[in-house]
Amino acid sequence: MRIVVYGCGVMGRRVATALLEKRTLELAGAVDIDEALLGRDIGELLEPARRTGVVVTPPRQAPLSGAECVVLTTGSRLAAIEDQIAACIDAGANVVSTCEELAYPWNRNREIAARIDRRARERGVTVVGTGINPGFLMDALPVVLTAPCLSVEKITVTRMMNSARRRLPFQKKVGTGLTPEEFRRKIESGAITGHVGLVESMQLIAAALGWELDAYTEDPPEPVVAEAPVETGFGTVEAGRVIGLVSRSRALHGGVERIRLSFTAHAAVDEEYDEVVIDGVPPIRERIDGGVHGDIGTVAVTVNTAARAVAAPPGLLTMAQLPPPAVTP
Amino acid sequence: MRIVVYGCGVMGRRVATALLEKRTLELAGAVDIDEALLGRDIGELLEPARRTGVVVTPPRQAPLSGAECVVLTTGSRLAAIEDQIAACIDAGANVVSTCEELAYPWNRNREIAARIDRRARERGVTVVGTGINPGFLMDALPVVLTAPCLSVEKITVTRMMNSARRRLPFQKKVGTGLTPEEFRRKIESGAITGHVGLVESMQLIAAALGWELDAYTEDPPEPVVAEAPVETGFGTVEAGRVIGLVSRSRALHGGVERIRLSFTAHAAVDEEYDEVVIDGVPPIRERIDGGVHGDIGTVAVTVNTAARAVAAPPGLLTMAQLPPPAVTP
Repeated sequence: MRIVVYGCGVMGRRVATALLEKRTLELAGAVDIDEALLGRDIGELLEPARRTGVVVTPPRQAPLSGAECVVLTTGSRLAAIEDQIAACIDAGANVVSTCEELAYPWNRNREIAARIDRRARERGVTVVGTGINPGFLMDALPVVLTAPCLSVEKITVTRMMNSARRRLPFQKKVGTGLTPEEFRRKIESGAITGHVGLVESMQLIAAALGWELDAYTEDPPEPVVAEAPVETGFGTVEAGRVIGLVSRSRALHGGVERIRLSFTAHAAVDEEYDEVVIDGVPPIRERIDGGVHGDIGTVAVTVNTAARAVAAPPGLLTMAQLPPPAVTP
Repeated sequence: MRIVVYGCGVMGRRVATALLEKRTLELAGAVDIDEALLGRDIGELLEPARRTGVVVTPPRQAPLSGAECVVLTTGSRLAAIEDQIAACIDAGANVVSTCEELAYPWNRNREIAARIDRRARERGVTVVGTGINPGFLMDALPVVLTAPCLSVEKITVTRMMNSARRRLPFQKKVGTGLTPEEFRRKIESGAITGHVGLVESMQLIAAALGWELDAYTEDPPEPVVAEAPVETGFGTVEAGRVIGLVSRSRALHGGVERIRLSFTAHAAVDEEYDEVVIDGVPPIRERIDGGVHGDIGTVAVTVNTAARAVAAPPGLLTMAQLPPPAVTP
């Protein structure tokens, strides 16, 4: 299966590296707009002196036709990448994207979603948004875990992550080292957003279960402040400074909470895990000890979804509408 | 969606009860061969004096046509129910069955599977075997849990169940109260089989992951013997007598173990759980604390798969080829 990576940033490069390891998948092209990358062998961007024969090309010269699937990793906001998706569709390629808003675009981006869906159906290709979260841990997996339930009242998903064990950009993203006042200002300015995609995850769950919920709320991220000095990638963070944050969201029906998601990432988390609790018949209490590594997980879910997207019926689908992705040989 | 239950034993009755609770599903018929049940309202079989208007009919008079789906719970062996499946297909109904061998019929029952697949494609309906196990906990769920993996070396699934908390027939099935010698004779005579479907679960995993394995082995069930008196549904079992069993199976490639399944059910299990461990990149260690109740789980997975079967492309499919079932409204 021939696959083009569209977007050669950190995630696109990791996807390219993963594709080069797969027996059944072929890295067939690499697309970016960054002048500094154009014309370079993507191998060089992965490790020094590596050669793959795949050269980074601008979108207009992109070898999209002939590709069964494009893995698009250029943005989190759907409006910003609609034209890129349309170009892939027009070239006859299926599209798997890490765009968070694409994981469930039928609410916040209803009109764009309808346009993409129509275009994809006309051209006979599939478009799906995925990743570790949104796309798997807080939506597709909880949906799968309701399979042994006769009824479900509420779904609670909790991720606990130690940010000090992650990349520096991630630690910065959660406010590590800021004063609580600096953190508050960055929330107000939008420089810190907390986890993106919680509302999309809740909407994906609700759609998959046939739930019509009437309110989706997302609290502003709350800072977690060091009670004692904490070691991080930024050195020691003193007591009283921020070491990370908690993102929380809830979905209700008639005032009753039906879905609650919370994502905690700070440098003093002792025990990392990803947990799904289903209040239902029977109740389900599931946990992945140690959690799933976010970057590896997103690359893997995305690559593993490609084969499913190619085989799926045409249109703009969600992860709950595809046979579950599994590790691709 | 109109659904007929075919088989009005313990599982069929529980499926009927579940269907009567569902807003989007309708119990449209009930089929059995037992003279004692024919002509009776299936409601009476569920609870005293209950009336549903659905009368148990013999297969030849069965209202199969007009049903979108038949839930077939008449046997564990595929050869014994092939004709029943064929009759459902000929009536234009999709089929979801708890037949353990149907969960992955392409190995042990390859020829029957090919006949069913051809017939289903010709008639445009879907046939799938499912249940909690095989069908979910030891195959479909582990496959889903490989989605965030770049590579997988080995999958180990362990179920730990306290049989004393289950139905008496189940406790009998695992040999509760026998002497080790009686247990051994019942294994030899086939009166005790251990858990049915472990090989099918391994084959389903291998097929879903594109693994070509060369050996599937299933050990004879091993008795677990009481070290001290144990309370069970049969009263106190003395030390030295059987309180349950362990079923184990393994799948190998080139002498290397790639899949290991073990199902322990005895009366002295302290901590019940269903666990999936994936040796891969990244590693995944997942556990459902308390385990999933087997009877409720099988009914739920089966009912929840019905909507997926109706929407799926025609043919004989496995659970890994359907969008994951989720709790049905």
